[in-house]
Amino acid sequence: MSMTNPTHPSINRASENGALLKQDMGARARVIEHTIDTLLPPTTGGDARLIEAMRYATLGGGKRLRGYLAIVTASLFGVPESQSARVAASVEMLHAYSLVHDDLPAMDDDDMRRGQPSTHRKFDEATAILAGDALQTKAFEILAASQTHADANVRIDLISAFAEASGAAGMVGGQMIDMEGEGRALPLAEVRHLHALKTGCLIRYSAESGAILGQASPDLRRRLRSYGANIGAAFQIADDVLDATATAEELGKTAGKDEASGKSTFVALLGIEGARAEALRVTEEAIADLEPFGAQADRLRDLAYYVIERKN
Amino acid sequence: MSMTNPTHPSINRASENGALLKQDMGARARVIEHTIDTLLPPTTGGDARLIEAMRYATLGGGKRLRGYLAIVTASLFGVPESQSARVAASVEMLHAYSLVHDDLPAMDDDDMRRGQPSTHRKFDEATAILAGDALQTKAFEILAASQTHADANVRIDLISAFAEASGAAGMVGGQMIDMEGEGRALPLAEVRHLHALKTGCLIRYSAESGAILGQASPDLRRRLRSYGANIGAAFQIADDVLDATATAEELGKTAGKDEASGKSTFVALLGIEGARAEALRVTEEAIADLEPFGAQADRLRDLAYYVIERKN
Repeated sequence: MSMTNPTHPSINRASENGALLKQDMGARARVIEHTIDTLLPPTTGGDARLIEAMRYATLGGGKRLRGYLAIVTASLFGVPESQSARVAASVEMLHAYSLVHDDLPAMDDDDMRRGQPSTHRKFDEATAILAGDALQTKAFEILAASQTHADANVRIDLISAFAEASGAAGMVGGQMIDMEGEGRALPLAEVRHLHALKTGCLIRYSAESGAILGQASPDLRRRLRSYGANIGAAFQIADDVLDATATAEELGKTAGKDEASGKSTFVALLGIEGARAEALRVTEEAIADLEPFGAQADRLRDLAYYVIERKN
Repeated sequence: MSMTNPTHPSINRASENGALLKQDMGARARVIEHTIDTLLPPTTGGDARLIEAMRYATLGGGKRLRGYLAIVTASLFGVPESQSARVAASVEMLHAYSLVHDDLPAMDDDDMRRGQPSTHRKFDEATAILAGDALQTKAFEILAASQTHADANVRIDLISAFAEASGAAGMVGGQMIDMEGEGRALPLAEVRHLHALKTGCLIRYSAESGAILGQASPDLRRRLRSYGANIGAAFQIADDVLDATATAEELGKTAGKDEASGKSTFVALLGIEGARAEALRVTEEAIADLEPFGAQADRLRDLAYYVIERKN
């Protein structure tokens, strides 16, 4: 979904910085990978297979958008990476658990995930259910540990925001609405709401987590929360556009799946050009949220454009 | 599993106090029920069905052994019931999530739970998976809220102990070992270990939670933790004896299921009388753990005998 535009200098700037951004995302993804590996070491006892499934589901893949947001927003407040990488690992574990359960036969019934067998195909259904369950527990356990922040109030703040974003009023609630809406035409407002919950809440939390760790002022925290919500919306709209326009080879998964399943998408409701315009609109709102941070937040600006320009 | 014994005065005492204990358990169960109802109110929005499934899975049933332990141990330290009932509600939600996932077709494939259709039979599999997921999140959310305790350090302490007891190194790890051991004869030490994880850890946490809420000394906390672990072991052994000896009518579920499924049980390994003796042995260890609490802990002593004397 290329948006390079000669009349829009900020977009050209984003494209030019895209390579640097990808390099930084790659470097942080390796830090996150290493942190997960350390927090969830392989074992040889009775829990070996469960831990192996948890590691399979979380290690070795993905852009780590959520974890990256946690690390970069925390760096705005001088938070050491040793702390923010733990928050990043915990949000990636939670994201991974949701994918493991989402892929189950009773849910989306997906055999593949990032070009590999999904967890229940690689192991078995029962192991996938339990690995997802234990990943959620582990995510909370990591946040509660004193290594995440010396101040217990900060940890509690992280845990409360995390639970809100991922439970019945957040991600899981969105998955439920998505399931119930299948095969039914939803109006635009409902599609927006569904995605704000299903993918938006956790991305919003990821951006907000840096402000929590950094004990930011309420205004700056609100700014990053809003930035995250807008990035989350842009991400989902761009996903719909990609599904409608990219090839399977570019995506690394089946293309055109949304239309085939009769899903209510932004593309179905707004058309491809309309969806692109909507993505650009929320991206610009995300950029506006960053205003008080000045040049320090350039990486987050680049990321906002990356989200709608990415090819997979 | 009656253990009334004319030569053992403490057991007779327990039997005499059984009626009072049941009355108290009933009263506390109503408090827990009300607390869950308040923390998880029905909704009418897009999340109505998810919340309904979460309520179905947690409300209206069970002895509330875990919640009862949380409330009674907290009362030893003068903790207000408004706080301990929240901990009780959260541990019962976690227990309920584990039962919902355990009953799924890919796991134990149980159609009935406490004489009612299990959650995936009443709703559907996807809803049951998501309701279980959201119940776990909710349990952590409740512990993190300031109403549970004014001191953030106490809440963090609760969350850490809770995560340890319920994750891969606790309850979920035990479920995994149980699944992997099916149809295979396990030695006694492994059966003990399996149950210490699968049911023991959460019961142990429930007893320990009162000491955490009450900011008890390390020694008293260790005492209650050990008491909980012993109660948990006694509970499981008594369960095996009940499965082998009680009628389906008494149990409210299929009897003799363990032998039919070739499960490694305490009865299979020790015989019925041997298992009864083992239950009594760990119950007496639980009683010994309570020594420093004096007469204040009589209710917990009664409970220890109740666990092995119950008929269902």
